[in-house]
Amino acid sequence: MWNKKFWTIFVVVISVCVANGQSRRIINIPDISGYKTLKCDFHIHTVFSDGTVWPTERVNEAWEEGLDAIAITDHIEYRPHSTDIVSDHNRSYEIAGPLARQKNILLIRGAEITRSMPPGHLNALFIKNANLLERDEVLDALQEARDQGAFLIWNHPGWKAQQPDSTVWWPEHSNLLANGLLHGIEVYNSNEYYPEAQQWAKGKKLTIFANSDVHGPMKVFEGHRPMTLVFAKSRTEGGIKEALFGKRTLAYFDNTLVGQSALLEPLFFASLEYDKAPLRLANGTNKVLYLRNNSDLDYQLELVQPGVGLDAPDYLTLKAHHVTPLSLSGNSDQIAGVKEINLYYAVKNMFTGPGENLVVTFTLKNLL
Amino acid sequence: MWNKKFWTIFVVVISVCVANGQSRRIINIPDISGYKTLKCDFHIHTVFSDGTVWPTERVNEAWEEGLDAIAITDHIEYRPHSTDIVSDHNRSYEIAGPLARQKNILLIRGAEITRSMPPGHLNALFIKNANLLERDEVLDALQEARDQGAFLIWNHPGWKAQQPDSTVWWPEHSNLLANGLLHGIEVYNSNEYYPEAQQWAKGKKLTIFANSDVHGPMKVFEGHRPMTLVFAKSRTEGGIKEALFGKRTLAYFDNTLVGQSALLEPLFFASLEYDKAPLRLANGTNKVLYLRNNSDLDYQLELVQPGVGLDAPDYLTLKAHHVTPLSLSGNSDQIAGVKEINLYYAVKNMFTGPGENLVVTFTLKNLL
Amino acid sequence: MWNKKFWTIFVVVISVCVANGQSRRIINIPDISGYKTLKCDFHIHTVFSDGTVWPTERVNEAWEEGLDAIAITDHIEYRPHSTDIVSDHNRSYEIAGPLARQKNILLIRGAEITRSMPPGHLNALFIKNANLLERDEVLDALQEARDQGAFLIWNHPGWKAQQPDSTVWWPEHSNLLANGLLHGIEVYNSNEYYPEAQQWAKGKKLTIFANSDVHGPMKVFEGHRPMTLVFAKSRTEGGIKEALFGKRTLAYFDNTLVGQSALLEPLFFASLEYDKAPLRLANGTNKVLYLRNNSDLDYQLELVQPGVGLDAPDYLTLKAHHVTPLSLSGNSDQIAGVKEINLYYAVKNMFTGPGENLVVTFTLKNLL
Amino acid sequence: MWNKKFWTIFVVVISVCVANGQSRRIINIPDISGYKTLKCDFHIHTVFSDGTVWPTERVNEAWEEGLDAIAITDHIEYRPHSTDIVSDHNRSYEIAGPLARQKNILLIRGAEITRSMPPGHLNALFIKNANLLERDEVLDALQEARDQGAFLIWNHPGWKAQQPDSTVWWPEHSNLLANGLLHGIEVYNSNEYYPEAQQWAKGKKLTIFANSDVHGPMKVFEGHRPMTLVFAKSRTEGGIKEALFGKRTLAYFDNTLVGQSALLEPLFFASLEYDKAPLRLANGTNKVLYLRNNSDLDYQLELVQPGVGLDAPDYLTLKAHHVTPLSLSGNSDQIAGVKEINLYYAVKNMFTGPGENLVVTFTLKNLL
Repeated sequence: MWNKKFWTIFVVVISVCVANGQSRRIINIPDISGYKTLKCDFHIHTVFSDGTVWPTERVNEAWEEGLDAIAITDHIEYRPHSTDIVSDHNRSYEIAGPLARQKNILLIRGAEITRSMPPGHLNALFIKNANLLERDEVLDALQEARDQGAFLIWNHPGWKAQQPDSTVWWPEHSNLLANGLLHGIEVYNSNEYYPEAQQWAKGKKLTIFANSDVHGPMKVFEGHRPMTLVFAKSRTEGGIKEALFGKRTLAYFDNTLVGQSALLEPLFFASLEYDKAPLRLANGTNKVLYLRNNSDLDYQLELVQPGVGLDAPDYLTLKAHHVTPLSLSGNSDQIAGVKEINLYYAVKNMFTGPGENLVVTFTLKNLL
Repeated sequence: MWNKKFWTIFVVVISVCVANGQSRRIINIPDISGYKTLKCDFHIHTVFSDGTVWPTERVNEAWEEGLDAIAITDHIEYRPHSTDIVSDHNRSYEIAGPLARQKNILLIRGAEITRSMPPGHLNALFIKNANLLERDEVLDALQEARDQGAFLIWNHPGWKAQQPDSTVWWPEHSNLLANGLLHGIEVYNSNEYYPEAQQWAKGKKLTIFANSDVHGPMKVFEGHRPMTLVFAKSRTEGGIKEALFGKRTLAYFDNTLVGQSALLEPLFFASLEYDKAPLRLANGTNKVLYLRNNSDLDYQLELVQPGVGLDAPDYLTLKAHHVTPLSLSGNSDQIAGVKEINLYYAVKNMFTGPGENLVVTFTLKNLL
Repeated sequence: MWNKKFWTIFVVVISVCVANGQSRRIINIPDISGYKTLKCDFHIHTVFSDGTVWPTERVNEAWEEGLDAIAITDHIEYRPHSTDIVSDHNRSYEIAGPLARQKNILLIRGAEITRSMPPGHLNALFIKNANLLERDEVLDALQEARDQGAFLIWNHPGWKAQQPDSTVWWPEHSNLLANGLLHGIEVYNSNEYYPEAQQWAKGKKLTIFANSDVHGPMKVFEGHRPMTLVFAKSRTEGGIKEALFGKRTLAYFDNTLVGQSALLEPLFFASLEYDKAPLRLANGTNKVLYLRNNSDLDYQLELVQPGVGLDAPDYLTLKAHHVTPLSLSGNSDQIAGVKEINLYYAVKNMFTGPGENLVVTFTLKNLL
Repeated sequence: MWNKKFWTIFVVVISVCVANGQSRRIINIPDISGYKTLKCDFHIHTVFSDGTVWPTERVNEAWEEGLDAIAITDHIEYRPHSTDIVSDHNRSYEIAGPLARQKNILLIRGAEITRSMPPGHLNALFIKNANLLERDEVLDALQEARDQGAFLIWNHPGWKAQQPDSTVWWPEHSNLLANGLLHGIEVYNSNEYYPEAQQWAKGKKLTIFANSDVHGPMKVFEGHRPMTLVFAKSRTEGGIKEALFGKRTLAYFDNTLVGQSALLEPLFFASLEYDKAPLRLANGTNKVLYLRNNSDLDYQLELVQPGVGLDAPDYLTLKAHHVTPLSLSGNSDQIAGVKEINLYYAVKNMFTGPGENLVVTFTLKNLL
């Protein structure tokens, strides 16, 4: 019997299992021209409001998951653990700070102004003193934040507990916007997606966010937590602030990216490597383009329009960290005369608006 | 209740699942100076001997798993399916060839000369006509292979069915070696490791191999199949042949590498990225070196000897595709005077001999 | 420093890895009253038609995956490997037979009658001699199969290669049905779902199938291969045949079940365990029902209609092999008077027709 | 082209993802005759000492992981968060209590008396008032605990920070033992195994424990956290206390069980199902016994001694929730006369002492 499947065999392995500190995952999402792509989560709670985790643990989680920046945004108005925890609103930031500096995580000082609708919950980022946000009137709190230089985000605008019937833009939000008290909006929070928010972001020029709003330990997300990709000129707090006010963000959740095509398109092509040599495709011949996807995203493509005189696959999944063949075949004599083939694919997991996919163009040389 | 964990929430997702061909995994093992690191499996069966898979499937498997080269090595003397399959010994190569060329897999023509011990089973690679290896006398078969330019490997030298009591080097093997009829040896086959073979490879200058010897579909290995890393001047059949005769291989199985330190060491350091700036370490200060491991291997390190005047971790796992901190702390005034710190670590999953780990030296500048 | 996270610790483990044969997975889908629930795949190819796997491997795969029965259904009219494999149409069954008996896998003799549309491809199961199905006229082949006692299935009725524009029921299929030459239909094949076939199965009283139609090694399906659940009076070939002609099947693919509510409903409730004691629910009180799901399916529930005077969750996922709480709260004084609470949930992954979910009723006692 | 692998196909799936609370995993470790097998972790920290998690989260973790009982054992003498958290030593128990009752997790009141070596750290379980354990003298603290009815455990006896050179039993421990101030010992803590402790447990009649000693969120263990299996007459706090003083525990960590053979052996056989019918094995015949392992453990067997006149596999892994064949073949005429075959296997992942495996006997009838 030669077949090794039926051998009685064994291997003795001596392994050394070591546990002296964790490792940091690398998130593979490329930089794009002129900008660093920073992975950020701007909505996080700790035991200092209604979370169940100590502030330093938030830094550890961010470091292990490969993030660049986080904001701890404990509620100003809601502190159910205050019987046992007596500290002020700046305390969670102060506790997390030294570890963040040690681990090179950018820690943004923040707080969540937590009111009934309207205007609901708003995160204030880049503030200087969270204690001063404890005000009776929400407008006073927001103006204080603005006076401290804050960037203000409308959190989970479609949360059923506050918007039970439909996701409404209230007059109060127009007012905030007009007065420089509203700069961004969550299109994704925890595990909810708000298409209305995406529409408003486009129409009203708000910066787009996806945040975890995590309260317990960060274990509930498969694959990766929701995060906001920030396209910053530098990996600094100042770089992030400039990028947020400049609206250079994408929402990243569940293998999906949402935002402007001006950011989505370069990110898509920066993820890929393939041979740029001319195809030399003729009628009846085949060419295979091997697309290597170096990013963590599986890109799902659907053909919108093939090039002239050739067939291309209707559907294609560019699996993360894999090479996927794109088979092209000439189907008419026309193809030989085409100098440049343009293939148009919709990227089904990149959204420029609610229900609107980014369409990308593969421009391929065909000089015979 | 603000805590989002208790919301009743839902998300409707419309996803398009596409199945139009597979993707190719990327094996991340770096090239080293002057050589391409080719991932190869030189011991594979098909239905044309006692395997259960058609030859083209072997090419598909190799492509999907990210290999560069395979050899189909059906038994010459053992063909249990011959009632139904009547073709000659070259047929499995011929069937697999066109698909291999299309998918850019290097397909090496091979065969397994399958005899009782001694000398056991030997793979002949780079042959021209497998039919001529069907000879009564094993020496005639081996000489025919050599005359065709073959590279000859002693397969699974410690297989219990042939070496029930201990793994023996027979006089016949010395004879083969002396007559240019033996060039390499498997130190790993399927799921068996043969430390004796590793010792012989060192002493007798044999090329080292790890091969799958797969008979059924390639699904039995977790993580990755056993493979032979070949350090070739070019990604061609000729490049592989030159490298095999030049003994430039490593055995790669189960997150372990076995072979010469002259290959292991550059591969280890080519896997890593870290900041080369001076540490400026003094007594009582700490520095953290962040080691980024870009390879697919988890490297397991054990401190052999720390530098002078500093503490370093006794154990460290450099997880694949992660960043791991290496914390150093000065423990005497001596450290300030040291211009170059040398840290010595044994790599517990890199073996230069049976039970002998590669020891690597991190040389770090310390100019204050 | 007491925190164990920062200890430098290690454990040396000596493990013995053994590889002497595979294990058989257990598929956890319960029996229902009076019937054994057999897990079957009735559409499988080997190298004897256009597959790439030897027949015995099909038995190994079925055994390892926990199946009860398979049919090897090589094409009669399409044998691309016939240059190398010269055997007749019964050969794949004969080769697989002894191993199937040894492993207690029920091996059904079958063949695929492979024609252009209409009528397309049909599987004949329970035949006696596949060679006699090689006939010029498709009707002659089907009649021969029927004369041998065959059960006949229309395979992949919506395959684009044969039904490019829409999935059509041809007059020829009505003719087959009228003449006892068509008994079942695939609503799922490989990775395609055909809602039209599900509609026809209901209207024309055809037995429902989900089959793998696997050609290469069985590795392409995540979770489990598509299979047909057969509700048989005994685990025998005769039991399966009686059940197929009796239309007692469900299609099982991708965590989804399709078929008659008379089979889906008992299967759903046979999967669950929970306390049947009266709830004693009153206005303002809460009760939690812990639902233990012993099956391999994650059941996804959506509330259709709550009981009178109480709130129940809108959505609930009963994760496989987990216990999920179902929280009920009384919301009016009416609830105290209700002796029996009926909760209606749609099971989103159980389909009685295209787009029609099974609705299940949890009937709970509430005697105060 | 009939082969479905090359179709261009797609499936549109509409799925409803629901997130309204978590599910509870089921730990499959069987009860043994007369006892319920309770899954417990008696060493857990929160933010009220040096942990980073709020007490309620410990209950959620235990519920989700399928545990029956936990003890929160915050340090009496070490409270690094006391600047922000001002509560007394009973507070973490009081906060976790209501959720534990709601989720039916048995919450044992405990505390960790935290001293330098000797005697090191000791957990006191079943105490009534943790505040009274805050005493200058460790003996006073332990006596107070005993007076409250405590069960006392020596934690991580081989922790390098306290036992740097070797794991020593100090005279002080003999003294504690003699005075009823020491009842149990951790043989496993976090990711450390202490063989010396296992030896002492045998010799000095101490109850065996494996505990997590978790400080951060419970995510660091693969597969399952370390836990203590308690064989209790009832699933109550009283039942656990009686079992602990009765020494009816096993340490369970990393697919390994450690403790008395009187508990290991019935647990092993309670995990298995197989046909008890006579084998009717004769010289030259084969029989296969199919062993179904219903537990979560992979049992690794090594043949110690085969039965008379038959061959049995040297190694066998009984994979969790799988059926594994055990092939027996008669190898002499003697076998026919044997009425009862005894097969002796060492269970390589069940330890009765350091390096000593449980040996189990399969007694099989062979009446011809």
